[in-house]
Amino acid sequence: MRLTRQTNYAMRILMYCAANDGRLSRIPEIASAYTVSELFLFKILQPLVEAGLVETVRGRNGGVRLGRPAENISLFDVVRVTEENFAMAECFENDATECPLVDSCALNAALREALNAFFEVLMRHSIADLVAQKSSMRGLLGIEMPVEQRALAG
Amino acid sequence: MRLTRQTNYAMRILMYCAANDGRLSRIPEIASAYTVSELFLFKILQPLVEAGLVETVRGRNGGVRLGRPAENISLFDVVRVTEENFAMAECFENDATECPLVDSCALNAALREALNAFFEVLMRHSIADLVAQKSSMRGLLGIEMPVEQRALAG
Repeated sequence: MRLTRQTNYAMRILMYCAANDGRLSRIPEIASAYTVSELFLFKILQPLVEAGLVETVRGRNGGVRLGRPAENISLFDVVRVTEENFAMAECFENDATECPLVDSCALNAALREALNAFFEVLMRHSIADLVAQKSSMRGLLGIEMPVEQRALAG
Repeated sequence: MRLTRQTNYAMRILMYCAANDGRLSRIPEIASAYTVSELFLFKILQPLVEAGLVETVRGRNGGVRLGRPAENISLFDVVRVTEENFAMAECFENDATECPLVDSCALNAALREALNAFFEVLMRHSIADLVAQKSSMRGLLGIEMPVEQRALAG
């Protein structure tokens, strides 16, 4: 059981944007911070933009930023967009099983209950929680604040 | 996020054995009930036997049965044996990430908390819970009880 690489990096992109405190983040800088390709980040950004979790601003001074406050983006909001499939077993997909138990299976019900417990924890955590130590995060990610903002930034 | 096919069929093998109420179950019959190959079932059985969840009896009248009472086998006991990896993200594996946040990542902690909630639900459910309706299960799985046991069986 493992989250997809897409989910993993979607979380990190959102953490980067949240640490950057409303300013536009440039893709090459995010890619460099996480040592992945820009193409890979663009692919991950697309569904995040479609879901309204990220906004893009085009042009020479363009970049990306959160589509809504980091406090209002739960980790569940992210996995719902980035994980293709929460079918824990083939019988979660109605027409894909030959299991004779499919119509009366307590296993299916137990796995759904476990998955819901997993989701409930993710709903309780927001992207803002993940970057509570903003200035430390900026240091780790190599995000430089403009001089005039340094005094104000948290 | 998905459990492996191994986990899925390990659960079903254990459910079959539990429904069979202590009698030996034959691999060809389990394979036939779930329409999978015997070779595939043998592969899944091996770690279950090593972990003591299943016992094998060799010979012409041999077969498999639970290694301990179904009440004492939780679904967590099963996934712990059959899932290779609960690294939700690459940073769960200490030496496998270049993420600059690795030493102070709240994402990692949140995912671990969610995974623990998932496990806790699985710990609360046993194989016995999954076959509470034994006679109905036997019907669905095509398990025939010997005539002399039918009057006694639950």
